[in-house]
Amino acid sequence: MGDVLKLGIVGTGRIGRLHVSNINRLVDGAKVIAAADVYIEAAEAELKELGVKYTYKDYKELLANEEVEAVIVASSTDTHAEISIAAAKAGKDVFCEKPIDKDLDKIKEVLEVVKETGVKFQTGFNRRFDHNFRRVREVVESGKIGDPHIVRVTSRDPAPPPVEYVKVSGGIYFDMMIHDFDMVRYLSGSEVVEVNAVGTCLVDPAIGECGDVDTAIVTLKFANGAIGAIDNSRQAVYGYDQRVEVFGSKGCATASNDKPSTVEVSTTEEPTTDKIPHFFLDRYTGAFVDQFTAFVKAVKENLPTPVNDIDGYRAVQIAYAATESQRTGKPVKVEL
Amino acid sequence: MGDVLKLGIVGTGRIGRLHVSNINRLVDGAKVIAAADVYIEAAEAELKELGVKYTYKDYKELLANEEVEAVIVASSTDTHAEISIAAAKAGKDVFCEKPIDKDLDKIKEVLEVVKETGVKFQTGFNRRFDHNFRRVREVVESGKIGDPHIVRVTSRDPAPPPVEYVKVSGGIYFDMMIHDFDMVRYLSGSEVVEVNAVGTCLVDPAIGECGDVDTAIVTLKFANGAIGAIDNSRQAVYGYDQRVEVFGSKGCATASNDKPSTVEVSTTEEPTTDKIPHFFLDRYTGAFVDQFTAFVKAVKENLPTPVNDIDGYRAVQIAYAATESQRTGKPVKVEL
Amino acid sequence: MGDVLKLGIVGTGRIGRLHVSNINRLVDGAKVIAAADVYIEAAEAELKELGVKYTYKDYKELLANEEVEAVIVASSTDTHAEISIAAAKAGKDVFCEKPIDKDLDKIKEVLEVVKETGVKFQTGFNRRFDHNFRRVREVVESGKIGDPHIVRVTSRDPAPPPVEYVKVSGGIYFDMMIHDFDMVRYLSGSEVVEVNAVGTCLVDPAIGECGDVDTAIVTLKFANGAIGAIDNSRQAVYGYDQRVEVFGSKGCATASNDKPSTVEVSTTEEPTTDKIPHFFLDRYTGAFVDQFTAFVKAVKENLPTPVNDIDGYRAVQIAYAATESQRTGKPVKVEL
Amino acid sequence: MGDVLKLGIVGTGRIGRLHVSNINRLVDGAKVIAAADVYIEAAEAELKELGVKYTYKDYKELLANEEVEAVIVASSTDTHAEISIAAAKAGKDVFCEKPIDKDLDKIKEVLEVVKETGVKFQTGFNRRFDHNFRRVREVVESGKIGDPHIVRVTSRDPAPPPVEYVKVSGGIYFDMMIHDFDMVRYLSGSEVVEVNAVGTCLVDPAIGECGDVDTAIVTLKFANGAIGAIDNSRQAVYGYDQRVEVFGSKGCATASNDKPSTVEVSTTEEPTTDKIPHFFLDRYTGAFVDQFTAFVKAVKENLPTPVNDIDGYRAVQIAYAATESQRTGKPVKVEL
Repeated sequence: MGDVLKLGIVGTGRIGRLHVSNINRLVDGAKVIAAADVYIEAAEAELKELGVKYTYKDYKELLANEEVEAVIVASSTDTHAEISIAAAKAGKDVFCEKPIDKDLDKIKEVLEVVKETGVKFQTGFNRRFDHNFRRVREVVESGKIGDPHIVRVTSRDPAPPPVEYVKVSGGIYFDMMIHDFDMVRYLSGSEVVEVNAVGTCLVDPAIGECGDVDTAIVTLKFANGAIGAIDNSRQAVYGYDQRVEVFGSKGCATASNDKPSTVEVSTTEEPTTDKIPHFFLDRYTGAFVDQFTAFVKAVKENLPTPVNDIDGYRAVQIAYAATESQRTGKPVKVEL
Repeated sequence: MGDVLKLGIVGTGRIGRLHVSNINRLVDGAKVIAAADVYIEAAEAELKELGVKYTYKDYKELLANEEVEAVIVASSTDTHAEISIAAAKAGKDVFCEKPIDKDLDKIKEVLEVVKETGVKFQTGFNRRFDHNFRRVREVVESGKIGDPHIVRVTSRDPAPPPVEYVKVSGGIYFDMMIHDFDMVRYLSGSEVVEVNAVGTCLVDPAIGECGDVDTAIVTLKFANGAIGAIDNSRQAVYGYDQRVEVFGSKGCATASNDKPSTVEVSTTEEPTTDKIPHFFLDRYTGAFVDQFTAFVKAVKENLPTPVNDIDGYRAVQIAYAATESQRTGKPVKVEL
Repeated sequence: MGDVLKLGIVGTGRIGRLHVSNINRLVDGAKVIAAADVYIEAAEAELKELGVKYTYKDYKELLANEEVEAVIVASSTDTHAEISIAAAKAGKDVFCEKPIDKDLDKIKEVLEVVKETGVKFQTGFNRRFDHNFRRVREVVESGKIGDPHIVRVTSRDPAPPPVEYVKVSGGIYFDMMIHDFDMVRYLSGSEVVEVNAVGTCLVDPAIGECGDVDTAIVTLKFANGAIGAIDNSRQAVYGYDQRVEVFGSKGCATASNDKPSTVEVSTTEEPTTDKIPHFFLDRYTGAFVDQFTAFVKAVKENLPTPVNDIDGYRAVQIAYAATESQRTGKPVKVEL
Repeated sequence: MGDVLKLGIVGTGRIGRLHVSNINRLVDGAKVIAAADVYIEAAEAELKELGVKYTYKDYKELLANEEVEAVIVASSTDTHAEISIAAAKAGKDVFCEKPIDKDLDKIKEVLEVVKETGVKFQTGFNRRFDHNFRRVREVVESGKIGDPHIVRVTSRDPAPPPVEYVKVSGGIYFDMMIHDFDMVRYLSGSEVVEVNAVGTCLVDPAIGECGDVDTAIVTLKFANGAIGAIDNSRQAVYGYDQRVEVFGSKGCATASNDKPSTVEVSTTEEPTTDKIPHFFLDRYTGAFVDQFTAFVKAVKENLPTPVNDIDGYRAVQIAYAATESQRTGKPVKVEL
């Protein structure tokens, strides 16, 4: 392997192009040199500008390019498993966007191929790389707050997606809370063994008509004995509200929201501070870059990836359990 | 009724004497003039110093004192109902410490007598008068954050009580979370209709041996459609952690902990602020005074009391439901 | 001396009556039993209610009352020195409101009588007892931030006093910044040796027409080598803005403003917190009580008072220097 | 002018290379294509990697390159004026690092040439582009806090530079506070007309032996009537402390320090938050990029530059006045 890790990307929609831009400008020691997309024409000019040499309509051609050492799978969800498997079989290390798939059996297939081929595999749970959440994890890992007892995540979007999207999203637990299922595993350093979901439709009746909920709380039990709660809302009108807390036997670590500036303005009205960002890319800018820095490091130094294929499996597994709990009104166990 | 409301108190233990001290020094327009306790000798000197004219061993003598216009019931829990009923029948307005009783039928009896006699009745849920929580309630009531969607309460004690106490406490839901059950009703302005309790024993195995838990999360559904979560721990080593949040259709109101000073100290170590208080009286000082100010106002101006007998009933009812949910591992409905 | 220190007060205007109320309700081991004021009739009912037994028109009668052990001088400024001297000569310990006098020679006379008679003497710089500022002082005293290098005080009133008052106030340095001159001495633990005042009239031209300023910054040099700056404004429309900071060789301690609650409200507008108080009594409630607790302790336990007569002298001395600096546009030394 | 503004840079030391990296990775619509430095060899590989096509030892060759449209002057301070003049005469727009020169006459010469040639000229006061300070300026400009009355800047370095550097630095007012002189002009929107400097040596006696001070407060009078104070220390052991405040007739805007994360950790010790950064590049990362985005926009859209040559002149002029005030112990006027 040369000094610079040569990457190919499959899928050049908004997020795919962001990945290319982030890596080629901001990630040292890596470069996206190839890209494939069935609609590659739409992205070609921008990709060239960003230094991508090879472009393809068919991802198989990209996999056949021997210069490409690792592949980023950023295509539509239903193609993640197939492309990941093909990439692994082609001997490429794989970075796959979340979720790997919605079908647990398909994810298992990916896990097996990864194991057989011995390639590196990282799932795109970018929030693990957020500066605030990573700091909480560091504090937990340091032992400073002792054993985790209660893990809490608040995660609320500024506005619901279009109902057309909601219909095909798999529901709030698959589409939105899946990030938080990964987050509580990351923060607690333990597996979720049982969930109980309480969901309701308070934001938009049209979401309820799709059989989905837009406001939900899930309580969790962890293998290490800790318990936790996640709350989600599709609509926090004040912005993208993302907070976590781990409470333990020796203390507590709490991450609140970032604000664009520290400025406080006092007038005859109540004092104000900046609004929190409304757009997830504003909040997770650094995380989107740092997940690739970590992937590149893992590949180059032959280290375990920080978010692996099992992580991708577990989050989907928990989403199924939460969905069932929501349907039945009863707690549901998660088999390890 | 004269300018000064003349109060009698039954029960002159630590909290009873605190009530006398607070009222006679800090509550305008009211004075505790009589006190009864089977161990009245222990408190007599202090009570005289605070201006209490009459002292009795038997509370019935206190009730027979015609100067006494209203009665504070601060005796042991198992006597609350009996004394409240006797006081109401004697035509005295009643302020009764929480819980009114642990037996729902006994509370119902109190409710009936209160209704028949037409006296004022207030339950001692002092936290409703905390400056932070009251402010959140005001914000909710103002409509500024719209309809409540998610209500969250964190309530953690600095250290667990002695195991001997735990054994007779009725368990964490009756002894500790009962405050929070009242708080979510207060904050949401709605009734709890279903709870699901997840509890575990992580702080002290001896608590588990009593059949109790020391760490718990309860999710709640409200009559108005909102959902909520309360988390409790018997041991937050960093202090008495008391926070609430109401998230609604138009915004969010969050109350964090008070600190003794605003001072931040920066050195070569990480910057520090003051610790939060470890003692509940330090946090709820103002609340302990203000609940009586509100009671005195209700009595004198013939207004509804701000925390009435139904409030006392509901909190116990929810504690029963949570305890059952904890036992069965399933959600439990609360009958309205 | 008995268990309860028996106090007399001279001057029963608003602040005088507040002192009586604070002491008789909230200060353990002390009681105001006597009060004198030329207009004593106006206060008599309230004083009786608060437990004051003796009332006089002439303060000399109060001094002649042998039950009175210590005297609070809360009359108009021009009578402070005379009454303090008479009280000391009558063998009473003295608590004197600030300033002792505006004439340095008269203050010196008080100092001499205090020395001769050996009575306790405390000046009413109540802000030293504020919870935030006291905490900063404790941090400085602990050595945690090393030697003080820079001392900063921001002190801004919500609204200017009436122009009629400004005319007789002695100017901003005597009327307002005198508190801050004492504060920097307290925080730094050192004497001010030079000041440079920059003042201007930006709030109300009428104040300028009286020959006064309403906006001012004074830089200070201290005997221990530290430097400092105080800024004052007669009109902070957002409230009573009171902040201090001590920066030292090993760190920094910063006190920001108190707010009535910790609640943050987020909506589609910028997030808001509570306004800071507009009224000095709301901010310094505890300080007004604690200064007497400290005085009572000093008298009873024969300890030095925490703010003594020299402190009263120095603040006035610095105010003179600042006034001269403002007039001449040049730095002015303060003779120790 | 093409779509992409083609830049040349003179001086490829640490800051120069940072500028190239920032522009070529992060500033849309601009590219550094040429670089000159007497020690160009040391930087050549890195510059090529960053996409710089042309490299020279002699800056005159760079100026002769017709592709180069604008020039960044990042060489040693004593060459800024000469190179800026040469660049302007070659018809290139100029971005010049601060200070333009330490000699006011030389700066005037630059001003004249800029005027004659009509090129764009921007001075490198990057702090104007800091997210916090810019927000304060926006609030001031919006009129929300009314007319500025008091402007305050705290600016403290984590550690003093080597004494060898201090000797040739021109002193604290030229080397460190010069940023703050520009900042108060920016924040207030007004010119400084008088300064009074109080400086002392508390951090390192060796700095005093060079005739310099390491701890200083400067008070300022502004043309619009406002007053202000800046405090500097060469050693804030807790990090790079950078705060500003503008207090006005209708309110106050305060910027506090950034912290790497929002996480608060509570244990049995006092609760801690993250340390503030120790390194100026960590604090001003965004500002270093944004100043070029602004320069590129000004050049391309033929707008006034946001920090021009007069700004560069004024800051040096105020530094001279402060140095003289420090020497004489008296206030010194700044001629406009």
